[in-house]
Amino acid sequence: MTKLVGNVIFGQSGGPTSVINASAAGIFIEALEQDCINKVYGAANGIKGILEEKFYDMGMEDPKELELLKTTPSSALGSVRYKLADPDVDDTDYKRLLEVFKKYDIRYFFYNGGNDSMDTCNKVSKYMQKVGYECRVIGVPKTIDNDLAETDHCPGYGSAARYVATSTMEVYLDARVYDTPMVCILEVMGRNAGWLTAATALSAYKGAGPDLIYLPELVFDMDKFIKDVKEVYEKNNGKVIVAVSEGIKDKNGKYISEYGSDLAKEKDAFGHSQLGGTAQVLASVIKNELKCKTRAIEFSLLQRCAAHCGSKTDVEETFKAGRMAVKYAVEGYTDYMVAYEREPGKEYKCNFKLVELEKVANAEKKIPREWITEDGTGLKQDFIDYALPLIQGESAPPMEEGLPRFAKLKKVLATK
Amino acid sequence: MTKLVGNVIFGQSGGPTSVINASAAGIFIEALEQDCINKVYGAANGIKGILEEKFYDMGMEDPKELELLKTTPSSALGSVRYKLADPDVDDTDYKRLLEVFKKYDIRYFFYNGGNDSMDTCNKVSKYMQKVGYECRVIGVPKTIDNDLAETDHCPGYGSAARYVATSTMEVYLDARVYDTPMVCILEVMGRNAGWLTAATALSAYKGAGPDLIYLPELVFDMDKFIKDVKEVYEKNNGKVIVAVSEGIKDKNGKYISEYGSDLAKEKDAFGHSQLGGTAQVLASVIKNELKCKTRAIEFSLLQRCAAHCGSKTDVEETFKAGRMAVKYAVEGYTDYMVAYEREPGKEYKCNFKLVELEKVANAEKKIPREWITEDGTGLKQDFIDYALPLIQGESAPPMEEGLPRFAKLKKVLATK
Repeated sequence: MTKLVGNVIFGQSGGPTSVINASAAGIFIEALEQDCINKVYGAANGIKGILEEKFYDMGMEDPKELELLKTTPSSALGSVRYKLADPDVDDTDYKRLLEVFKKYDIRYFFYNGGNDSMDTCNKVSKYMQKVGYECRVIGVPKTIDNDLAETDHCPGYGSAARYVATSTMEVYLDARVYDTPMVCILEVMGRNAGWLTAATALSAYKGAGPDLIYLPELVFDMDKFIKDVKEVYEKNNGKVIVAVSEGIKDKNGKYISEYGSDLAKEKDAFGHSQLGGTAQVLASVIKNELKCKTRAIEFSLLQRCAAHCGSKTDVEETFKAGRMAVKYAVEGYTDYMVAYEREPGKEYKCNFKLVELEKVANAEKKIPREWITEDGTGLKQDFIDYALPLIQGESAPPMEEGLPRFAKLKKVLATK
Repeated sequence: MTKLVGNVIFGQSGGPTSVINASAAGIFIEALEQDCINKVYGAANGIKGILEEKFYDMGMEDPKELELLKTTPSSALGSVRYKLADPDVDDTDYKRLLEVFKKYDIRYFFYNGGNDSMDTCNKVSKYMQKVGYECRVIGVPKTIDNDLAETDHCPGYGSAARYVATSTMEVYLDARVYDTPMVCILEVMGRNAGWLTAATALSAYKGAGPDLIYLPELVFDMDKFIKDVKEVYEKNNGKVIVAVSEGIKDKNGKYISEYGSDLAKEKDAFGHSQLGGTAQVLASVIKNELKCKTRAIEFSLLQRCAAHCGSKTDVEETFKAGRMAVKYAVEGYTDYMVAYEREPGKEYKCNFKLVELEKVANAEKKIPREWITEDGTGLKQDFIDYALPLIQGESAPPMEEGLPRFAKLKKVLATK
């Protein structure tokens, strides 16, 4: 295949992770090295930045700062949640994209995100093919939720899992210092897939983890939950640690977190709609039932931006995933997402492959039922074997005066 | 002074820190090396373990595990919140302590905690002196609140401050990824003193910190708060980061966190008394006022147990503080707390000194008003100069399979 000469545009989309910029670094550094690529643009706020013609000339950045992106959390270019319309219904955005692509001679489009973003990627790719504009489109996965189909795991998951497992071990020790009862409930991100909550099982594997884990893969039953907690409470002298996914739902499909806001809505002098996350609701229930001290801890944004506690395996793979996206595109591939493939065998080894965007867009991968214990409150060794290799090695940003030195981009706006 | 021969007992008290066990390690390791000391006991749950004759023979522990205590968060022996009565009113506990001290030939008593614990220390010391039982009593400070009098800073503060400042920088980046408004409110521990909340000013000093900081040292005015936030909101395109102490109060002395539970109490189907911490109340207020997205993040227990993000300066000083307590006692000192004294001059250097327990017991050190900006929403360079040296150097536990390897004590119960 002949090399396609032109410019690159790259965008970040969806909720950030602590390593999303590592993919960006991989893409920028690789693209700047490729002969067939002239300009490398970074879109401000993903697809929105392209539509608004707001993007940065990454060639103007100090290479040292691009290198620092590897350990800089959050989306350095800004992110977006924007769903492109079906082009058959409304092709306004697509026409505009084509216009911008032509104006800036964009021949390579890389998009970094979760399944929604792969859908965006897929739509853009199909549209460009339809109108006969040659442009290679490659998606780069990213999500702490680890729920993308067709890939062994997702960039961002290992680091978030390492942070959650580490912090859970620490909280485990802290939550049992007094010789009085205490039920501690940890809330982990994950609306539909429980991969990150399951990472607390790694702490349990190390002897300092939750007694009970509740995942969104299974229906949450409040009565069973109370019974489960009571059992551990009796057995462990009132010391109970529970980990829950924010996304657990009851048998009617109602989020447990909604139990709290329902109440809050009725009493809204301060507009309390954000009161009561899942952990808080459950802590209240337990406090009411067992009349004991409870504590709800939400990992909140901390779990997805903790670059100071990253997984080296994750950071390195994520950086390479960015590089590979560019390499594949230059080789002539288009309409794919870069994915991870784990080699069989005891020793962990991960290779890259390409999967069709079509297959990833809007699909969701959940934890297999057989990896969850029969009673639904723990993970089996299969999960430990799967997740443990992904959190190996320590990654942290370089320090300056005791605090992380994150990348500082100049963000020189591209002009035409 | 002649050397006093006998045994040691040590107890941990109050809320744990990520380095409280570093002091324990210092005390155990030093005491086990001293010729005049035979047995070294660690009390289970502080003073309670002594009263109940439940303590461990630390000489039975693997020295490698004692070393690991340096980077193991939380109170390895268990902690307690127990206030001794005034001995003139009720001397039951004191008689019992004397009985136990005599039975086990305890001639050295070390107690690790905050100002309440120094009060305990002081009372025990005075009682033993009164009844003529020779026993050397030294308090070892500990608190992430950094509010003990007569010491430049407190063991545990530097590590908690480093964690809070690091995480705040990370959240700062994460909370501004979208080009839509977002007010993010971070809640930091500290009921009466704002030292730890002030640590977020270190993030601001690094260019990635809160726009507004509210400390319990000043009266909190809700109207001014709303005005402050609105101002930043206008100036920063709707991006606002606020840090608040959990302990901020209005002019009537009412905690802002109580604004939430007041409402919750009236609507209590799930016993919602824990709903609505300070940050949540303020996020609700802002959501109501500005109709924008808000997020409340509570550092909760995470901030006091994050050994994975410790300050090397803090860990080393804390370990030495434990060693010094034993050395001072062996030299003949009693009725003191080990304290830090910073040398004047640009370069940070910290020495040890002794201060009378009397002066520390129940006293509280707050941030000087002149270190806080006039408008009460930030810290001046004086605070940065004070705090920055305390967070220098990285400390983390050794890793095993990607996760921290914390100390595992055998906890062999002492018998007589």
